[in-house]
Amino acid sequence: MAHPRPLQALLLATPDETEAQFYEAMQTADVERMMALWADDDEVACVHPQGPRLLGAHAIRAGFDEMFGRGGVDLRAVQVRRSVIGHCAVHQVLEQVRVATPEGPQTGHLIATNVYVKTPQGWRMLLHHASPGGARESHELGDAPSTLH
Amino acid sequence: MAHPRPLQALLLATPDETEAQFYEAMQTADVERMMALWADDDEVACVHPQGPRLLGAHAIRAGFDEMFGRGGVDLRAVQVRRSVIGHCAVHQVLEQVRVATPEGPQTGHLIATNVYVKTPQGWRMLLHHASPGGARESHELGDAPSTLH
Repeated sequence: MAHPRPLQALLLATPDETEAQFYEAMQTADVERMMALWADDDEVACVHPQGPRLLGAHAIRAGFDEMFGRGGVDLRAVQVRRSVIGHCAVHQVLEQVRVATPEGPQTGHLIATNVYVKTPQGWRMLLHHASPGGARESHELGDAPSTLH
Repeated sequence: MAHPRPLQALLLATPDETEAQFYEAMQTADVERMMALWADDDEVACVHPQGPRLLGAHAIRAGFDEMFGRGGVDLRAVQVRRSVIGHCAVHQVLEQVRVATPEGPQTGHLIATNVYVKTPQGWRMLLHHASPGGARESHELGDAPSTLH
């Protein structure tokens, strides 16, 4: 009897699938789902906007634990530029984030670099580096100017 | 008679060599040298700290023209984490920047992701994404706290 392919590999068959799951895990504040997307590699690295660089799975998990302790993040990828070099995929992503403020919901933009590597367990995240975007990104997307950055 | 290898390929024989030249071009404000390091690829992308994302060689050159118009940047890589995936190299870099201020020279830290691709013209830059570091990065390097971030 043939062995079935691992579920994880089926779910992470392309960098885009892994990326979609990354943003879903952000929205649902699901640490386990988030951490299942990362490569089993000492060099994994994560930088949240205006945060320190988090190196290794332990530090990255602690960062998401802290972030998700405040709830999910209404974050989505709105514009993606893709480069695939063999078993490595580099995505330059414009992210849109919505947050509730005392003045009502605000929309802002972040600039993220996401790097994925192809492994026997599917395409997994090697790196996420996000930083605040600005007026140019809001303009690029045709949004009204936002003060959120 | 054998054809000599192109000079550019000799000079960019490893991702580390390309990275060293990147920081030298920053210090010497040399736009031509800087642009010679980038891949001939529509997907090249560059994000300077707190700046917009610059997509394509034309926008990237304009960004360096503007930056170098104010002189060189005393920027160096002080801690590099490397991943090589076939013809793609991903460097997570802690950068140290020194700037003159009315209160004297100040040292700050930036967090950068540099991605290189191996081409017939050597290892070339595909992406540079830099954002401000903070107290944790200064502490990590054993520097005195700095207000530059």
